[in-house]
Amino acid sequence: MSSIFSQIIDRKIPAYIVAEDDHHIAFLDIMPLVKGHLLVVPKKEVDYIFDLDDELYCSLQLFAKKVAIAQEKAIRCTRIGVAVIGLDVPHVHIHLVPLKSMDDINFSRPKLKLSDDEMNRIAEKIRIAFSELG
Amino acid sequence: MSSIFSQIIDRKIPAYIVAEDDHHIAFLDIMPLVKGHLLVVPKKEVDYIFDLDDELYCSLQLFAKKVAIAQEKAIRCTRIGVAVIGLDVPHVHIHLVPLKSMDDINFSRPKLKLSDDEMNRIAEKIRIAFSELG
Repeated sequence: MSSIFSQIIDRKIPAYIVAEDDHHIAFLDIMPLVKGHLLVVPKKEVDYIFDLDDELYCSLQLFAKKVAIAQEKAIRCTRIGVAVIGLDVPHVHIHLVPLKSMDDINFSRPKLKLSDDEMNRIAEKIRIAFSELG
Repeated sequence: MSSIFSQIIDRKIPAYIVAEDDHHIAFLDIMPLVKGHLLVVPKKEVDYIFDLDDELYCSLQLFAKKVAIAQEKAIRCTRIGVAVIGLDVPHVHIHLVPLKSMDDINFSRPKLKLSDDEMNRIAEKIRIAFSELG
């Protein structure tokens, strides 16, 4: 059974995808801490970020950097926070969280539930900002 | 006025340093969430991680990976969690936090206060594990 993220990559389940290349993908977290909270995922299904080989680890981090720059243009915030926890889904995922305060990246707090329309609107803004980076 | 981390790098203020090379340094967070909580910092004083040029950004991430591998050997945990928040000290710092549960990386919870002896013991264990990586 492939991970839920592999199923998103394979388009077996839907997601609000904002950026993708041959080896990486970024989409909205379906249970966001704040509006515009993204997950950045390598297409290769590896559980633990520090088990990635150096090449994929770096390319994933560079992809996350580019996504974060687009995200910050699209979502009003002070800066983008980063978290990798990985105690839930066994497939590497970097959280990129638009921050206004420290508590915005507190994973113990209740998650937002946004409408499909709003998720689509947010994803589209980030997608456009990403494509404009060239 | 240089940042508190630059003062650590310049040995103007003490720290529990566990690893260092020409461009990066890692030391114990003085207000740890859990035992063995580290900060990984570039020697160049840049405020925001996504403002680092790609070369330093990647080398910092690779240094953090190596430190995390040593940290996981030295500190009992399920895996190492990562966070970059940066709303406090204006000098890039990656938190590496030994995790047993999700709440171990909740920055809103009270910090530990460990004795100098215990901090030294923890730092020494990670330092040895790092040096053994070669």
